[in-house]
Amino acid sequence: MKQTMKKMITIAALAGITLTGGVSQTALAQDDGMTALNQPAKVKNVIFLIGDGMGPSYMTAYRYFKDNPATKTVEKTAFDAYLVGAQTTYPEDDAENITDSASAATAMSGGVKTYNAAIAVDNDKSNVKTVLEQAKENGKSTGLVATSEITHATPAAFGAHDPSRKNMAGIADDYFDEMINGKHKVDVLLGGGKDYFVRKDRNLTEEFKKAGYSYVTDRNGLLNNNTTQLLGLFAPGGLDKAIDRTNKTPSLEEMTNAAIKRLDQNDKGFFLMVEGSQIDWAGHDNDVVGAMSEMGDFEKAYKAAIDFAKKDGETLVVATADHSTGGMTLGAGGEYNFKVESLKAAKRTPDFMANEIAKGANVKSTLRKYISIPLTAAEIQSVQKAAVKKDVTTIDNAIEKIFDTRSFTGWTTGGHTGEDVPVYAFGPQKERFAGLIDNTDNAKIIFSLLKQ
Amino acid sequence: MKQTMKKMITIAALAGITLTGGVSQTALAQDDGMTALNQPAKVKNVIFLIGDGMGPSYMTAYRYFKDNPATKTVEKTAFDAYLVGAQTTYPEDDAENITDSASAATAMSGGVKTYNAAIAVDNDKSNVKTVLEQAKENGKSTGLVATSEITHATPAAFGAHDPSRKNMAGIADDYFDEMINGKHKVDVLLGGGKDYFVRKDRNLTEEFKKAGYSYVTDRNGLLNNNTTQLLGLFAPGGLDKAIDRTNKTPSLEEMTNAAIKRLDQNDKGFFLMVEGSQIDWAGHDNDVVGAMSEMGDFEKAYKAAIDFAKKDGETLVVATADHSTGGMTLGAGGEYNFKVESLKAAKRTPDFMANEIAKGANVKSTLRKYISIPLTAAEIQSVQKAAVKKDVTTIDNAIEKIFDTRSFTGWTTGGHTGEDVPVYAFGPQKERFAGLIDNTDNAKIIFSLLKQ
Repeated sequence: MKQTMKKMITIAALAGITLTGGVSQTALAQDDGMTALNQPAKVKNVIFLIGDGMGPSYMTAYRYFKDNPATKTVEKTAFDAYLVGAQTTYPEDDAENITDSASAATAMSGGVKTYNAAIAVDNDKSNVKTVLEQAKENGKSTGLVATSEITHATPAAFGAHDPSRKNMAGIADDYFDEMINGKHKVDVLLGGGKDYFVRKDRNLTEEFKKAGYSYVTDRNGLLNNNTTQLLGLFAPGGLDKAIDRTNKTPSLEEMTNAAIKRLDQNDKGFFLMVEGSQIDWAGHDNDVVGAMSEMGDFEKAYKAAIDFAKKDGETLVVATADHSTGGMTLGAGGEYNFKVESLKAAKRTPDFMANEIAKGANVKSTLRKYISIPLTAAEIQSVQKAAVKKDVTTIDNAIEKIFDTRSFTGWTTGGHTGEDVPVYAFGPQKERFAGLIDNTDNAKIIFSLLKQ
Repeated sequence: MKQTMKKMITIAALAGITLTGGVSQTALAQDDGMTALNQPAKVKNVIFLIGDGMGPSYMTAYRYFKDNPATKTVEKTAFDAYLVGAQTTYPEDDAENITDSASAATAMSGGVKTYNAAIAVDNDKSNVKTVLEQAKENGKSTGLVATSEITHATPAAFGAHDPSRKNMAGIADDYFDEMINGKHKVDVLLGGGKDYFVRKDRNLTEEFKKAGYSYVTDRNGLLNNNTTQLLGLFAPGGLDKAIDRTNKTPSLEEMTNAAIKRLDQNDKGFFLMVEGSQIDWAGHDNDVVGAMSEMGDFEKAYKAAIDFAKKDGETLVVATADHSTGGMTLGAGGEYNFKVESLKAAKRTPDFMANEIAKGANVKSTLRKYISIPLTAAEIQSVQKAAVKKDVTTIDNAIEKIFDTRSFTGWTTGGHTGEDVPVYAFGPQKERFAGLIDNTDNAKIIFSLLKQ
């Protein structure tokens, strides 16, 4: 039998066919148009996408939101074809057993469980090496893309080290100061957070420019730039939510494509982390309109990554969430419906509308301007009543309530929730992410692929 | 190359090794101790387990509940190793886009989308053939096991046909009257719902006995019986929840083992559906203690099915949910914790305690008797206040609130929620259930396996 096995392996190598048997625990599927002789299939590039706060209910809510009501089938999203399993997200924290974004991102970037707020440090506050750093050590190019501050917890945990996520200036410093083999460790940084780079004590944008990076601050600057190393900061803090953006701010898809275009010039490959940062922020705000806006932004970026990977053939694309947020549910208060008509009718987030109203805009005309279905007199009055004190949050909550009530969206918290989150994988070695994995397994698998 | 392929297939057949390649879309993993020459692997028996209402948050909540606090790792449940993906659950209903149990069970039993309340009938109210019926047509043995009435929506949609789930007497009639090739279609029926079998107009238990079935009504009767065909009805309606049961009522595990023991006597194999019915009921009641009780009961039944399948080698075990219920979340009100100490301390459900209190039992001593950690004076007073009117629901809600507050469990509805639910599969052909499938795919896949 051993002889037969040897013979088979030889023939299989010639034929480019994968063998599995009782000897192997791993399911191997080569359905990505990979070429022959990939045993194990080579991973040149890794694109790791994180929908912050994008728990199971967000995936389904977005599918309902995008559904074509003219058909009986609920059409699939760009993610659905690539579901391979789920991951556990719990942190290793003395006080909390539901993770924050920092601890979860450290698990996914460094492969260790740690306390909430830790940026790529373990429970002893020692730095842990991240997959981005390992990729750089291997001579690959690297990138971080987010719609939050690029110094926010999730991207930070891939490219910086800090005992606290709050130290966003220190995190920006790390991006410039922490060198790997004499080189800056992140080649492409795209997102928000200019305030953490341009400071009284230091102007990191100037330092990056002197080091050979381009620096862009708006969509046109991004699209017209052609340098390999790039710092793009498109807002003082986080970017506006997708449906609130002007044409001066790039989409997550545009930032993702800009990053891929640059990083792909390296023959040794690249590691890119892309975060849909504000799915979580909408969740914290219990804003289902904002959540659908950011899901859409993230889906397009995901599709861009998949499209690249399909052409490239040596790119692994993994998408997942760090945790879920808000306890959002499809269906609430006993109703067996999640009705998306009102959500589709929103042209701006409740936050955007509330800000205009708080600044003095007329309630009725503001709501009419930004919500393309007629509201009831009672709904308008509820916002008028909330607007008396000119407090943005109060007005925001009143507008959100209209959408929650019409759509039957439920919420249980302004914080995170602990359920397992879905994992999507495409490309060579995708099968390594199948089944129920732990968030630390993402890093462990990518580290092992980087050792190939 | 064609010659090489032929040669490989021959060698592979001899060696009992599975081949996959660019030609195949299917991931094949033979890690179940299957013997050689199974291409495609033969499925003799199917055990299909449904955790009613067991959405993603229930899986994680139960893992936290069972966690050994002495270790840093959150230990896996019996389900976790077998996660293969998730399924969409939406119905095809004019008024509602979140499913009920009848529509979802019809999708899983018959492979068609239908309206809420439909029992194995389509939107034209025509009967649809179920996988249980197909198995019977093939000469296999069949069984239905549940902790609800055995005439309740989920089991009913596998073994009966009715325009309305409410017609539980008619459903009981179907179990006896609808013959396949001259034989009763369900060989083993175990659960609650005696009231729908023993009626003024008809006593189905007598009819079943005349037809050669044994009829048992308690745990001892079940465990001491040895006939092949068996009707077991252990309560007038649903069974008590697991932690409220006396030793007169069997566990779901015991019913499952009793069913398997009988059905496995058929050389042609069997189809068995097992439902953890009351995970959903606890969800509707927003009772996290009850939910954990029923998850535990269901997990043990699942493990019994897996243990049998591991020994048998030709049994496919699929476990999933029909939908989620209650909008339950781990974490609520801004807290990043799901604390299970109080849930572990409960020896009975809040319902059980509320019933005793409503009948006149002292609040403080009842709570002390059934909750093994000290409650605060305020907590006891909240129940005393609720108990004034002797209304069970009011008292129940007050007790539930103690557990919700201590555990940080959130709820958004007394109904169902729409998020995708997890799918677990083990045994030959398990890979057919991988990725994101639709609830109708369960039936479609099982039908295709029955055609082997």
